[in-house]
Amino acid sequence: MFYLNDLFLQKLFIHMKNLIIASTSTIYNGTYLEYLLPTLKEHFKNISTLLFIPYARPGGITHDQYTEKVRTAFATINIDVKGIHEYTNPVEAVQQAEGIFTGGGNTFLLVQQLYKNNVLNTVIDVVNNGTPYLGCSAGSNICGLTMETTNDMPIVYPPSFKTFGFVPFNLNPHYLDPIEGSTHMGETRETRINEFHAFNTQPVVGLREGSWLEVKGDQITLKGELDARIFEQNKEAYEVKTNTDLSHLN
Amino acid sequence: MFYLNDLFLQKLFIHMKNLIIASTSTIYNGTYLEYLLPTLKEHFKNISTLLFIPYARPGGITHDQYTEKVRTAFATINIDVKGIHEYTNPVEAVQQAEGIFTGGGNTFLLVQQLYKNNVLNTVIDVVNNGTPYLGCSAGSNICGLTMETTNDMPIVYPPSFKTFGFVPFNLNPHYLDPIEGSTHMGETRETRINEFHAFNTQPVVGLREGSWLEVKGDQITLKGELDARIFEQNKEAYEVKTNTDLSHLN
Repeated sequence: MFYLNDLFLQKLFIHMKNLIIASTSTIYNGTYLEYLLPTLKEHFKNISTLLFIPYARPGGITHDQYTEKVRTAFATINIDVKGIHEYTNPVEAVQQAEGIFTGGGNTFLLVQQLYKNNVLNTVIDVVNNGTPYLGCSAGSNICGLTMETTNDMPIVYPPSFKTFGFVPFNLNPHYLDPIEGSTHMGETRETRINEFHAFNTQPVVGLREGSWLEVKGDQITLKGELDARIFEQNKEAYEVKTNTDLSHLN
Repeated sequence: MFYLNDLFLQKLFIHMKNLIIASTSTIYNGTYLEYLLPTLKEHFKNISTLLFIPYARPGGITHDQYTEKVRTAFATINIDVKGIHEYTNPVEAVQQAEGIFTGGGNTFLLVQQLYKNNVLNTVIDVVNNGTPYLGCSAGSNICGLTMETTNDMPIVYPPSFKTFGFVPFNLNPHYLDPIEGSTHMGETRETRINEFHAFNTQPVVGLREGSWLEVKGDQITLKGELDARIFEQNKEAYEVKTNTDLSHLN
């Protein structure tokens, strides 16, 4: 009886959204993904091979170089990694993936490549049907409704700014508070997000480095040790504590 | 005879490009445009009314609010200001302008509005034919070949990233050196520009706040007190001193 219930639950959960949306891959003084590994061990406990999407190419490194870096990190929790560029048919690679990780880098490049390789809608389908997903930085930014609150430089022109929409708001990874006493006249992050809200209605979640969102079905929870900063149109920005349920935000 | 020569020279110069491309409108501890006013008095000495393009709307302020701010600054050098949004036909407004100023704000919004109002090519035509131009920040970014080295947030989707091309390279206004000892893991400005060069060949001029480029015909000169940082594809970035001739850079 207990065994049946367990199977029943597993079947139920297997078709639920299951995401980790992290501000950054690496925190100060840490190695790549190190701070997240205990969480990822649990998140990817049912999979043996992870599909990696290296399209964002941080600093212009190659897909192979980037995939190798990810392979090294996941080897420590006994998960094998394959880069999407290693497959002839990237759409099939996504359809058959046990789990998906999109790494950070340049969001414009990432989104351009997702469209060019025709995988954007396939990723949406499989993740909405339960394929566990991990995003870091640019790979998290695209989990929002649009990429319009990225911090990245528009080094290439994507055919659209529309992204996965796994959460009903936008994300600003690597969220940075204004630097007190700064003499720099360029816009602060908060000013930029306010400009976004002059033209767009969806909330923006400013995720500080070390924070992540855990998405289980429709449940969205802030994780990590830090507070996050929430921007809603026509409202003062406000802070929320870790473990806050953000499911209502839209 | 002297008088004829003078007229001849004026005629010659009148069809030459004549631009001030400034990193920022405002330097720390200064008021709006203050540090540039002596330069602008000379730059706009032959005009009585300036056409202002307020499309970039810094912080989401209205076209009227922005134009009023510019009007106040130019009143101190006896130049009247009209906003392009005050005209029924913005293309005619550009064609008839004695001088043009494009203010800072969000570059994505600015470029989207230039295309939407169909004025991009008209500005290119009149400025290439001698109408004096001033750009600050976003209004300077668009003087390059593309807007792909802006620092701004992509809050709206422009139909193209192609911009004026008054200089044969790209610009990065508000150029910021990496902050020594920073614990932030987001990309530095230099990393972002290197990512740009993984996909694009044109040089990028990093203009620090307080610097500007003076363009007279094909002559491009760095002005202000600070050095600028030049990024060329497949080369180490390097510094150039004020008064350096950048005409060769392309």
